[in-house]
Amino acid sequence: MKVNHHYFEIQDSYLFATVGKKTAEYKKAHPDKDVIRLSIGDVTRPLAPAVIEAMHRAVDDMSRKETFHGYGPDQTCYGYGALIESIKGSYAKKGVFLETEEVFISDGAKSDLGNILELFAEDTVALIPDPVYPAYVDANVMSGRKVIYQDANEGNGFLPMPDESVHADLIYLCSPNNPTGAAYSKEQLKAWVEYAKRHDAVILYDAAYEYFIRDESLARSIYQVEGAKECAVEICSYSKTAGFTGVRCGYTIVPQALVRDGHSLNKMWARRQSTKFNGVSYITQMGAAVVFSEEGEKQIGENLNYYRNNAKIIADCMDRLGIWYTGGKHSPYIWFKCPGGMDSWTFFDLLLENANVVGTPGSGFGKNGEGYFRLTAFGTEENTREACRRLEAFLSSMK
Amino acid sequence: MKVNHHYFEIQDSYLFATVGKKTAEYKKAHPDKDVIRLSIGDVTRPLAPAVIEAMHRAVDDMSRKETFHGYGPDQTCYGYGALIESIKGSYAKKGVFLETEEVFISDGAKSDLGNILELFAEDTVALIPDPVYPAYVDANVMSGRKVIYQDANEGNGFLPMPDESVHADLIYLCSPNNPTGAAYSKEQLKAWVEYAKRHDAVILYDAAYEYFIRDESLARSIYQVEGAKECAVEICSYSKTAGFTGVRCGYTIVPQALVRDGHSLNKMWARRQSTKFNGVSYITQMGAAVVFSEEGEKQIGENLNYYRNNAKIIADCMDRLGIWYTGGKHSPYIWFKCPGGMDSWTFFDLLLENANVVGTPGSGFGKNGEGYFRLTAFGTEENTREACRRLEAFLSSMK
Repeated sequence: MKVNHHYFEIQDSYLFATVGKKTAEYKKAHPDKDVIRLSIGDVTRPLAPAVIEAMHRAVDDMSRKETFHGYGPDQTCYGYGALIESIKGSYAKKGVFLETEEVFISDGAKSDLGNILELFAEDTVALIPDPVYPAYVDANVMSGRKVIYQDANEGNGFLPMPDESVHADLIYLCSPNNPTGAAYSKEQLKAWVEYAKRHDAVILYDAAYEYFIRDESLARSIYQVEGAKECAVEICSYSKTAGFTGVRCGYTIVPQALVRDGHSLNKMWARRQSTKFNGVSYITQMGAAVVFSEEGEKQIGENLNYYRNNAKIIADCMDRLGIWYTGGKHSPYIWFKCPGGMDSWTFFDLLLENANVVGTPGSGFGKNGEGYFRLTAFGTEENTREACRRLEAFLSSMK
Repeated sequence: MKVNHHYFEIQDSYLFATVGKKTAEYKKAHPDKDVIRLSIGDVTRPLAPAVIEAMHRAVDDMSRKETFHGYGPDQTCYGYGALIESIKGSYAKKGVFLETEEVFISDGAKSDLGNILELFAEDTVALIPDPVYPAYVDANVMSGRKVIYQDANEGNGFLPMPDESVHADLIYLCSPNNPTGAAYSKEQLKAWVEYAKRHDAVILYDAAYEYFIRDESLARSIYQVEGAKECAVEICSYSKTAGFTGVRCGYTIVPQALVRDGHSLNKMWARRQSTKFNGVSYITQMGAAVVFSEEGEKQIGENLNYYRNNAKIIADCMDRLGIWYTGGKHSPYIWFKCPGGMDSWTFFDLLLENANVVGTPGSGFGKNGEGYFRLTAFGTEENTREACRRLEAFLSSMK
């Protein structure tokens, strides 16, 4: 028998493995050094008290015959009404109005971003920004799809705009972006929506970081752009919004107005999920259902502010150093230009040795990442301040 | 752009929808009647106290910075050590010894049964029993795969054996079976393992109901057959074992010895899961990790015995009526021949009208299901006894 040979066309990424290995080696050689990791893309703050309470109640529900829950509701691909309503409410505050059938509860953005490719013919072409979250590319290559890249760089502020001369069927947009932290304005997304319509394409809009946005001119949902329901799927997650990386819950919006090749993508996705998925834990869903309540939003807001403050500490440091960067304001990521025209790995090594700070080399996210570096706001405030102090001292000493 | 047209080659199944609709109509027309549903394939007993306790502890862990958990461990595709070790321990009791890297934690059997098809070339041919759990067929058709069927019928006790004249690449076996409740002996599975090896095929072994087995001659894992690690993936679930249908946790075994077309399927599956999956909730994993503890097994055993007793009540009823059936002993399902050579839907209607009992027409599971009927053991004991009393009264009146 033959296996799927497209699996072997993926470029193995050693990015995080190499970061880990180099860090471990340095620590072994210098056990006395206090190494600060600002490389992690994972949250560190505990869950909001309202979520904890709701999950305890849900666990108790599962302990009694009368309140026990088995499979979730069939009609909504296993999503509970309370959760779907809370998501619709959160969208309504952004001026976006959704039908219940348009909201699909998922176990996270990564699963849906990969699985949704099944809905499209194999000869559809994917347009993916470079630098990029590696899973977008890998999922396409594994399914045998042709991938074309759009350059994100200093010239366009790492926010590439459509090129009419290029045709694509699937367009990946992530805003605020991972890894660059750059966020599209509503005006910029309008150009993408128009491009998608002209090319009969579908935008796969990754909005995992939208809760970091506080500027009204920036888009918190692609559906804030008129006509986007006819050309975009939006993939959201509680991971960064509410610290759910270890809890696993997200939601994907597939509008009923999204029709391609004569077929409703909403109905196709419902079919996919009811055939190959059995929904998200009742306990998880009950926890997620209070995230967008008044109390929940206040509590997750405190965690988001903690990370935002860390991001500001790093951004202020870059400002003082006169280093070019994106992100930091509406994102937990700061993406900056390596000083002195250094390449990403050279800077990684120097920073580790001289400042004992670990970040992520931009070149690991694509060719346009070469010469850039990512720091994240997910550490503690104390470590973030100390890392910035060391970074400034080190770079001053280099001058 | 083109969508994936294989999605429209699926036969829409109206089985459960029609059962629901007919039941609702009957209840509306006869509001005074007490209708008993023995059609459900979902558990009804609450979770074991040990699981509830472990999940409360895990929720508390998530409330404190010091014990908070983000993404699960990378090296094991996000499965926690305690859970993987407990699964290895459960296998060891069956005489099956697994490596940590061979155990993949999933959000349920259905997801993995569908997603694992990605590992195989599109022109691989799937051999699927008829009658069958509809998701096997749908997942294959949606990916454009050719499906051939093997007849399960009264002649082979609904346990089809390999036919050397037929070639297949992927072989679906489900034992104890859904919907028929029939369970393969180790001896019978040996023939399948030999067939798979001769045909360079891979067996996808769905063991979701293995905890219902209490007869040593029946297989609780395909790996109890020598050489199976070289030709089989085993898909397991806590859903029916521990009442996790609403909690979502399972495990899939992809042995390191399983190599096809020169490639390790274990490494391919690890790649698939790390690209398109982010693991199962920490809380869920901590709950699952105590299922196979001494205390956990005692408690889930009580629930399993409750269902087993219901199954026995139905099986005894069939014995008294002299009706041919499979299942009932090592399975929560009883699959019986409709009396008087009736077709499945005629019997459904008669049973609903005359005994106010709802079951599932066998014809909904495939052509070989015509003339058969499924009842499940997941109701209450009281309802199960009453349903059997009515069934006997009704069938006696027919004679």
